[in-house]
Amino acid sequence: MVDFNKISEFFENSSIPQNMLNRGQIVLDNFLKPIKILFEQKSVPKEPWSDEQIEFLLQILSNMDTDKDDRAAKVGEREARIASKLQLKTSGGFCHGVGRSGFLTAPQPKAPGGSIMYEISNFLARNFLKNFGLPNIKKAIVVPLCTGMSLALCLGALKPDWNDNKFINKRKVILPRIDHQSILKAIDLIGCNVKVVNGKIFGDAVRVPIEDIKSNLDENCFAIISITSFFPPREHDNIKEISKFAKEHDLVHIIINAYGVQSIEWMKLIRTAIDAGRVDAIIQSTDKNFLTPVGGAIIASPHDELITKISHTYAGRASATPIVNFLISTLSLGLTGYQTLLEEQKKNRKLLEKRLVEIAKKINERILEIYNPVAVALSLEKLKKEQISELGGALYNLRVTGPRVYNQEDKNFGMCCDNYPIPYIVMNASIGAKSTDIITAIERFEKAYEQIIKK
Amino acid sequence: MVDFNKISEFFENSSIPQNMLNRGQIVLDNFLKPIKILFEQKSVPKEPWSDEQIEFLLQILSNMDTDKDDRAAKVGEREARIASKLQLKTSGGFCHGVGRSGFLTAPQPKAPGGSIMYEISNFLARNFLKNFGLPNIKKAIVVPLCTGMSLALCLGALKPDWNDNKFINKRKVILPRIDHQSILKAIDLIGCNVKVVNGKIFGDAVRVPIEDIKSNLDENCFAIISITSFFPPREHDNIKEISKFAKEHDLVHIIINAYGVQSIEWMKLIRTAIDAGRVDAIIQSTDKNFLTPVGGAIIASPHDELITKISHTYAGRASATPIVNFLISTLSLGLTGYQTLLEEQKKNRKLLEKRLVEIAKKINERILEIYNPVAVALSLEKLKKEQISELGGALYNLRVTGPRVYNQEDKNFGMCCDNYPIPYIVMNASIGAKSTDIITAIERFEKAYEQIIKK
Amino acid sequence: MVDFNKISEFFENSSIPQNMLNRGQIVLDNFLKPIKILFEQKSVPKEPWSDEQIEFLLQILSNMDTDKDDRAAKVGEREARIASKLQLKTSGGFCHGVGRSGFLTAPQPKAPGGSIMYEISNFLARNFLKNFGLPNIKKAIVVPLCTGMSLALCLGALKPDWNDNKFINKRKVILPRIDHQSILKAIDLIGCNVKVVNGKIFGDAVRVPIEDIKSNLDENCFAIISITSFFPPREHDNIKEISKFAKEHDLVHIIINAYGVQSIEWMKLIRTAIDAGRVDAIIQSTDKNFLTPVGGAIIASPHDELITKISHTYAGRASATPIVNFLISTLSLGLTGYQTLLEEQKKNRKLLEKRLVEIAKKINERILEIYNPVAVALSLEKLKKEQISELGGALYNLRVTGPRVYNQEDKNFGMCCDNYPIPYIVMNASIGAKSTDIITAIERFEKAYEQIIKK
Amino acid sequence: MVDFNKISEFFENSSIPQNMLNRGQIVLDNFLKPIKILFEQKSVPKEPWSDEQIEFLLQILSNMDTDKDDRAAKVGEREARIASKLQLKTSGGFCHGVGRSGFLTAPQPKAPGGSIMYEISNFLARNFLKNFGLPNIKKAIVVPLCTGMSLALCLGALKPDWNDNKFINKRKVILPRIDHQSILKAIDLIGCNVKVVNGKIFGDAVRVPIEDIKSNLDENCFAIISITSFFPPREHDNIKEISKFAKEHDLVHIIINAYGVQSIEWMKLIRTAIDAGRVDAIIQSTDKNFLTPVGGAIIASPHDELITKISHTYAGRASATPIVNFLISTLSLGLTGYQTLLEEQKKNRKLLEKRLVEIAKKINERILEIYNPVAVALSLEKLKKEQISELGGALYNLRVTGPRVYNQEDKNFGMCCDNYPIPYIVMNASIGAKSTDIITAIERFEKAYEQIIKK
Repeated sequence: MVDFNKISEFFENSSIPQNMLNRGQIVLDNFLKPIKILFEQKSVPKEPWSDEQIEFLLQILSNMDTDKDDRAAKVGEREARIASKLQLKTSGGFCHGVGRSGFLTAPQPKAPGGSIMYEISNFLARNFLKNFGLPNIKKAIVVPLCTGMSLALCLGALKPDWNDNKFINKRKVILPRIDHQSILKAIDLIGCNVKVVNGKIFGDAVRVPIEDIKSNLDENCFAIISITSFFPPREHDNIKEISKFAKEHDLVHIIINAYGVQSIEWMKLIRTAIDAGRVDAIIQSTDKNFLTPVGGAIIASPHDELITKISHTYAGRASATPIVNFLISTLSLGLTGYQTLLEEQKKNRKLLEKRLVEIAKKINERILEIYNPVAVALSLEKLKKEQISELGGALYNLRVTGPRVYNQEDKNFGMCCDNYPIPYIVMNASIGAKSTDIITAIERFEKAYEQIIKK
Repeated sequence: MVDFNKISEFFENSSIPQNMLNRGQIVLDNFLKPIKILFEQKSVPKEPWSDEQIEFLLQILSNMDTDKDDRAAKVGEREARIASKLQLKTSGGFCHGVGRSGFLTAPQPKAPGGSIMYEISNFLARNFLKNFGLPNIKKAIVVPLCTGMSLALCLGALKPDWNDNKFINKRKVILPRIDHQSILKAIDLIGCNVKVVNGKIFGDAVRVPIEDIKSNLDENCFAIISITSFFPPREHDNIKEISKFAKEHDLVHIIINAYGVQSIEWMKLIRTAIDAGRVDAIIQSTDKNFLTPVGGAIIASPHDELITKISHTYAGRASATPIVNFLISTLSLGLTGYQTLLEEQKKNRKLLEKRLVEIAKKINERILEIYNPVAVALSLEKLKKEQISELGGALYNLRVTGPRVYNQEDKNFGMCCDNYPIPYIVMNASIGAKSTDIITAIERFEKAYEQIIKK
Repeated sequence: MVDFNKISEFFENSSIPQNMLNRGQIVLDNFLKPIKILFEQKSVPKEPWSDEQIEFLLQILSNMDTDKDDRAAKVGEREARIASKLQLKTSGGFCHGVGRSGFLTAPQPKAPGGSIMYEISNFLARNFLKNFGLPNIKKAIVVPLCTGMSLALCLGALKPDWNDNKFINKRKVILPRIDHQSILKAIDLIGCNVKVVNGKIFGDAVRVPIEDIKSNLDENCFAIISITSFFPPREHDNIKEISKFAKEHDLVHIIINAYGVQSIEWMKLIRTAIDAGRVDAIIQSTDKNFLTPVGGAIIASPHDELITKISHTYAGRASATPIVNFLISTLSLGLTGYQTLLEEQKKNRKLLEKRLVEIAKKINERILEIYNPVAVALSLEKLKKEQISELGGALYNLRVTGPRVYNQEDKNFGMCCDNYPIPYIVMNASIGAKSTDIITAIERFEKAYEQIIKK
Repeated sequence: MVDFNKISEFFENSSIPQNMLNRGQIVLDNFLKPIKILFEQKSVPKEPWSDEQIEFLLQILSNMDTDKDDRAAKVGEREARIASKLQLKTSGGFCHGVGRSGFLTAPQPKAPGGSIMYEISNFLARNFLKNFGLPNIKKAIVVPLCTGMSLALCLGALKPDWNDNKFINKRKVILPRIDHQSILKAIDLIGCNVKVVNGKIFGDAVRVPIEDIKSNLDENCFAIISITSFFPPREHDNIKEISKFAKEHDLVHIIINAYGVQSIEWMKLIRTAIDAGRVDAIIQSTDKNFLTPVGGAIIASPHDELITKISHTYAGRASATPIVNFLISTLSLGLTGYQTLLEEQKKNRKLLEKRLVEIAKKINERILEIYNPVAVALSLEKLKKEQISELGGALYNLRVTGPRVYNQEDKNFGMCCDNYPIPYIVMNASIGAKSTDIITAIERFEKAYEQIIKK
């Protein structure tokens, strides 16, 4: 095969002078060098890769898979045949997906390149988390499932053996109240019962006191879930205490860190919890943290064997695309790119608060005092019930996406407690947002607010 | 906005003559017309679309999603931001994925285009199955999960309410023995027990007699699984009788039709079963039947509301890519393209048998008499145990992918019965295979066989 | 840099077994092997390359150019900077174009990869022509100019030194009448006079007798042009005799072989002419012969130094795209692909004649007896002048592209003679046409004809 | 055909709510709106387009060409057939190229979309120049030729009729000395004689005095060339006086404005010259001014009919790619994008001078006093002849591209005069360069300089 390190050898007797060929080789080396480093170190690159470099890597690896082998004789019922070459794009070339016989990270004999791709991605996932706040994890996998389904997978893997009569009733999962459908559905999907511990109001914040959690424990509980990132008024859980509690009572402990990687504070909570007690798995969304299209998550754990177990639980092979998307994000950002995003996020969070404080003064409302490194909540006490309802629709029409307008008279799912007394609006300064998003959103909020008031 | 039906109006006073502009408009109309028909009829096109037409449709629809709106102010924590434009390719442009709050087919307010895309895909899925053998289904959805996980989803949706003490023990799923890890894992994942009914040998074939199934029923059973496509020696189930049995005993009945769409015989089994008794859901792989990259399945049902229920069970949002892949396959094949593939499959199946018969004569083996419209099995009784083991590796090295070499002395998982007396090799003439695949595979088999014999 | 021959070395301690890595390496080798062969042999590959392989080659080479070097410091006024990455596609990545200071084939120091790309393309051009009929050429270049401008370039390079007073009047170019604007414009552009030798009618054919050519020679002539492919009623020139004549009288002789590569008969004329007398350059269109987008030509010569001279004449650097297009065509066809196209062309030519003969009988017309391996002409003597005029428009509206309807009462430019007595229509069975093109065109012709007759 | 303004109508009865469909339509309108404005106004957009928008436009237009018409019956010898779909990328989809029968801007019946594309591009070219300094031009065309070949085309179009004996000797073109091969080659190619007027040294600058030009006029001159952008020590010409002189003596006057669009000062020279006397055509490179890949130029003129004449002179059809490249650049920059580039260029020019002044002090050299808004020259009087020679190579190896090192003892072609007394190096702060280019280039220059001194 051609050695791309020595292209000039083929053109020695050509009309192109040697020094020119050498210069060309240097430029090419510069282009290909990051691939070598990646193969050697299997860690997140320091500097961003260009799209061309990423495509090149995908091209190389996907051309190791047997579906690309035009000399192969394919007599299986599943050979990654595709109807259109467009599907090479949508799959990053990895038509065989990932996994083998219900073992997600098992090498797939028909897909050596896809297997390498997946292995590298998992290494990068671990390395990424280690670099940004979780040095004490041991292993991570990227799964082609959202956060909720990942929770189902983890619980499914770590649940007691219900075929053993001893454990037949050990089905309860303690959930400090998190008003998110996906979590409830995940627990239900795998045949568990959820034991919700209600939130309480502390000043403006909603928290679930550790005492309440403790008092809800019974012999049928086998697991507990805790959370970092959530939207106000709910604050993060006291994960460290939950971790200790889990250890003490031999509970599976899974942390939903949905979009928490972007905050060193949230990450610190997890790091401390790992050291203090028992953490089985930490789940984070790839799209909310790493700017991929929706559909992937990273499951990390301080225990190797748990990740292996979870990986064994996925019932079949899966789409490679969510993995590829994570790989693309990681390579196209690099450590410095992600660091920059984190810094922008912090600035935008400050900007968001500053602007909301200003507007609060104007309209005689106030910023709710709730700890959250991403979101800010503004009270809407001066509005009537109907006006609050109107506000959401008005913002949608003004092309503001993502704000949450809540009023407990309407429904309290979302507040994580009963009878939260204050209606409010929440906005986020998430990773990847631009300062113009913040500025424009607040201008439009002001506009919508005025219109509603005037009616 | 510009009306592409009337481009010539903008160039009336240009140097380009009117008849030439008209001619151009006709060509453009020809290019865009299939999109209109698709929007109107929401059914599988008769003729294949070109890749350019498919990309155009994806471009139009994905540019309706709010992440493309550069005038939007985005203050949510999930706004489908991406790190690299490459991810527009891997997602077909649908960065928001599909689903909303754990309801897979719910329209997603941030993704109007993605929602249309998904709705169309589901219509196409239904229409496809109706056209190729299942006129009596009511609804279908494409899910971004493989067959096994789809089974978990279906069972998860249709299982009894275990929070109700009455049903606490109703966890058993009857499984006419199918030696596929994914199915066992799916059942286990959602907290059910599997009740395997062993296969019995009838001539060469392995079948699971309906009587044996019946005798395994007990009060804790709530569901039964049946199968069409599987590899020899296991034959398809007597689905019609299972269907009647399910109806009679109020069992959820799910048919695994993994790669059965390619065979009108297998499809007929399902059609008849639907009419005869109870069928809740039929699951088929998108990659094995529709030539997509791995990672999707179609779940169909004769009952609207079941599909809705299943769709409600997915815990979160999911990657849009498996849906897009199905859409691409459907449009790029069209009815005629798929018909052609079916005919080729039939020819290749005949060719496969013919060649194996020839070789069987040479080596004093025989074709096993097992009904299977895709696969053929050849006995390997003249080989010693070690030689049989060697054969698989030899074929892998000769770049034959997909054959299965079995010998019950090694392991009997795969045979669906205990003590299958004959070692054998199975090859498939699947949809999408070329006749050269068949021919070459058998040549290489012969070569490998000879080498092994001579040693 | 990473050696793609040894990817497995990087994953030795990974979870992926060695035999799987080896298998992957084999598939990758298979993918990359043609590149090595191309670099070694610099000749047209036997078998077609896939689009992915071609893109890979372009990627490698274009990443040797300095505009890709993100560590370069660029302080020239021309550094191949681009406004959009789309322009990497339109240029095949070769933003620096080809050529240096008005020397088309000179290596460009800023573009080592582009220089290799161009050198390879020129080798392929020569090799292609040698394989398909012209073993006796010495050198060829692909130029980013159409046939007409290539003629200007050749004449411009080979014209006498008009600064030398001796030659001041030596400006005449003898042109056996070819009714093509581009040729006349080319001669005019470079300041020459054309001496047209009129065609004469022989049966149905129009030819330019060698005697007439000879009698038109005068002392101010320095060059003569001859032609192979043209449309009826004009037949090819007696190139062998012209070649002898050119040698005898020291005339530059340039052959316009516009779309002649597709015919071994036309190519044979050139081969013989080279051996018999003097041929300076042979010009062929890349789009008409090699299925590229419009805009390139190959200039070949039996004399090395003439090609060098011509290459020196282009005043500047040029777009690389026409070169890249030729390279793409050559690699994506390969020798066998082109051979297949030639055979199809022959079949289609027969089909065209057959169908026209049938229709001729129906409408009482006849096939004109004119030698042409691509085109066939049908008389239109039964139509009135106005009807003939109508026919062209009617066919355009019926989406028949490319037929020529001629009637000398309208204009005789195109017939290459005065007073050609018969009106006619010409259709081509060119390389790349499908048999459906032929069949449909004639059906529509029949339809149009009937409509016109009935009016 | 589907009306993309009303997509929601097709989904009225779908599960997707109307307000969501409306929101999607708004986002889509936002995406497509610039196309409408372009079609209506045919002028450079104010704001940049995204790559996706540009591709969409190309897609729409190229799908109006008959080669895309799968219902057409193609019986011409040139039907824009392509060997590979990759060639759709390299041609922007415009496989038919541009032009018809040697008339570059004539609409091509087989390419209505390509014809629109070309017409729009020419309008944009005119509008661009009008916006950035030349309000007094009437027409412009983008040609698929570099600056030099464009000059050949202009001269070829505007030369006297040499077939008329009166004009037989009127072949001389006056050229104020410009040491660029392409210009000399262009003049030679079309059969003219060049009359070079030598440069003279004024302080550090080299200029060609108008008196010297005047004194070189004789009755055989028919044209004069003048220049704006060139590299030091040559300064721009006194174009206004040349313009007056051309008018007075009825000379064709062509301005080479190679990379002059980036400077309002250079553009002002041209604007004034147009008003003051006679200017026939102004030629500017698309790559140097508009950041396209190499291979295109814009020819502009204050006289409509001259552009038409020039357009008639190209002998054949041409590649569409250089036109497409200009279109892409224009749309992807927009007026504001180009304005930003101009401002950056100015800053970088200042930075370049500042840094060179600093280094000049260190090494006891000086900045040459030569007017040039892009380039700066530094004397190299302290170096020996061999050291100067070494410097160029050293910089090439240090990956500095584009500097010019000159020493008249080596060769004086480039200085535009004889015996320029000072050796020097020239660097450019061109449009599109980054400040890091400037900074790094000078650092490396310093490094190279020191190494050479120390040896």
